[in-house]
Amino acid sequence: MNKAVILLSGGLDSSTALAWAVQKKGWECYSVAFDYGQRHHVELEAAARVAASLNITEHRVLHVNLAAIGGSALTSEIAVPKDQETTHGIPLTYVPARNLIFLSIATGLAERIKAFRLVIGANIIDYSGYPDCRPEFFDAFCKAAQLGTRAGIEGQPFSIETPLIEMKKSEIIALGLSLGLDYGLTHSCYDPTPNGDPCGHCDSCRFRRQGFAELGKEDPLSYPD
Amino acid sequence: MNKAVILLSGGLDSSTALAWAVQKKGWECYSVAFDYGQRHHVELEAAARVAASLNITEHRVLHVNLAAIGGSALTSEIAVPKDQETTHGIPLTYVPARNLIFLSIATGLAERIKAFRLVIGANIIDYSGYPDCRPEFFDAFCKAAQLGTRAGIEGQPFSIETPLIEMKKSEIIALGLSLGLDYGLTHSCYDPTPNGDPCGHCDSCRFRRQGFAELGKEDPLSYPD
Repeated sequence: MNKAVILLSGGLDSSTALAWAVQKKGWECYSVAFDYGQRHHVELEAAARVAASLNITEHRVLHVNLAAIGGSALTSEIAVPKDQETTHGIPLTYVPARNLIFLSIATGLAERIKAFRLVIGANIIDYSGYPDCRPEFFDAFCKAAQLGTRAGIEGQPFSIETPLIEMKKSEIIALGLSLGLDYGLTHSCYDPTPNGDPCGHCDSCRFRRQGFAELGKEDPLSYPD
Repeated sequence: MNKAVILLSGGLDSSTALAWAVQKKGWECYSVAFDYGQRHHVELEAAARVAASLNITEHRVLHVNLAAIGGSALTSEIAVPKDQETTHGIPLTYVPARNLIFLSIATGLAERIKAFRLVIGANIIDYSGYPDCRPEFFDAFCKAAQLGTRAGIEGQPFSIETPLIEMKKSEIIALGLSLGLDYGLTHSCYDPTPNGDPCGHCDSCRFRRQGFAELGKEDPLSYPD
């Protein structure tokens, strides 16, 4: 069984994870983007562009309204922090249980298409603040998904692949470039301008710009300054 | 902390679980119904009626489009089985990863409102066929939710309550009646008529009717025969 379901936001990490799954692993890839009421809804266009640029089997957008729950700068009126020093604790951009929810819905799709492997582009930088990017969470989720689906009843092993979990941004970008990924198609900003351009100052823009700078490569996206 | 988030479909089991949480446990109850593209969409009206009849804090409907995934008689064109002998294996009405998805979204809400307890009305009859009604699944899910949320980072214990897990339908009905629950407000049918009446012949109707019969009580709902 060579199928994989990949969570694809259209950002730098998930796009690299998809390129890895397609080109490095040769899996039959089904990518999933989530329309969840996010402030940076424009990322869905980036996800579609990235999916179209790679040799995947299918890309789909699934809907779950997390804005109805709120509690995050990404799904409510809470302002996205800009130019902040890295803080300890959970960032304001944390969306309650988001990876738990996205992985669960992806598990439903995986079960439907008889795939037994999920891929998520979580990595060490998110890991520092988001509880749902920790390896121990992914291990626990995998056990729950195994037991809560047909796979569990039928004794089919189910896995979660986190290829970027221990990589820095610059390493992730180097991997993507080595696989021919066009980062000009991606979108990372949490708080884009009305016409979809990146703000350049949220955590996501800052980590991305720093990654390109560390690697000595130019980010194909343009920033306001 | 006395708060609980209760998954409420408007069916017999979840309505009884809610009555138990409100009246027996005295918890501050937040009920959640899911609009997920189900064939028996009318159950959402029953959920609202049941919630309104009990002393709860808040009832809300959350959206997640599982019909876009399909693979079940409840979310696709697959016909709902009628008057079938109980079969082994997973029923056609199983929705891929449904409890995993619903519990995950409920976990997001729980985290948002600082509740650390979910209640689900799963029971032994479902348990016989649905992988996501098994106690071992709930245990595994609880660990994943603990690790994937703020609760985990902050060391707050998180629990899943399954008060009906080992009860037969007749015992569940007896519990609900003892708590004053009006089963005339509930809706159990997987495949209602266009005006919302129960079919009387799907598994859910059959288990319900059998439960009332075993208990020697009359079901307040009327059936076509």
